[in-house]
Amino acid sequence: MEPVSRIKLKANGRIWIDTEDGPFMGYGRLEILEKIKEFGSIRKAALDMKMSYRQAWQLIDQMNHQAEFPLVISHRGGKGGGQAILTETGEQAIAQFKDFNKAFQQFLNGYNENLNK
Amino acid sequence: MEPVSRIKLKANGRIWIDTEDGPFMGYGRLEILEKIKEFGSIRKAALDMKMSYRQAWQLIDQMNHQAEFPLVISHRGGKGGGQAILTETGEQAIAQFKDFNKAFQQFLNGYNENLNK
Repeated sequence: MEPVSRIKLKANGRIWIDTEDGPFMGYGRLEILEKIKEFGSIRKAALDMKMSYRQAWQLIDQMNHQAEFPLVISHRGGKGGGQAILTETGEQAIAQFKDFNKAFQQFLNGYNENLNK
Repeated sequence: MEPVSRIKLKANGRIWIDTEDGPFMGYGRLEILEKIKEFGSIRKAALDMKMSYRQAWQLIDQMNHQAEFPLVISHRGGKGGGQAILTETGEQAIAQFKDFNKAFQQFLNGYNENLNK
């Protein structure tokens, strides 16, 4: 096909995973799971993402209810705040979405070559 | 990989095409180009999409300036309003994006089989 434009075209996009109950995993949720793993705390993860604790907690709660096992287990703490642990299911959800995104980026790269030749 | 959830997962996403000057083509722009082809009028296309004439015209204008040739040529009309014609470049842009989207939907379908097995 003749190129539509001499200006370089760039195929772009974004992906996510839904369940019948709504969105399950996406770039923002991936990031919060990774930060919870890093910090061991929903509060610290939320702070780092400039998100309210409530927002972060709601996302985690939604994910936990959609999956067979919780992705994050949190304990209300005393002094110094609570702790949050990323479960094996959480690790799997991260790996799954990264794998999906890697395949998508490869698809886009392949399509970009196609677009501009 | 073990399934994260017994709930059926659905890989989802959306795509678009950018140039260095910003967004060039996407689902909304595809629709407006197709409606201009159908109705021969930017005004009627905008009305059908519940969009203002101004919004529609701006999208068309942006696309026209990014491509080597205009995608839509419009004539201010007298009685009954102006006419708009989808050019060959416009046809190519439609075909290109549909082709891209078809490949993307195939990618998603393939990935969905992978996700739920």
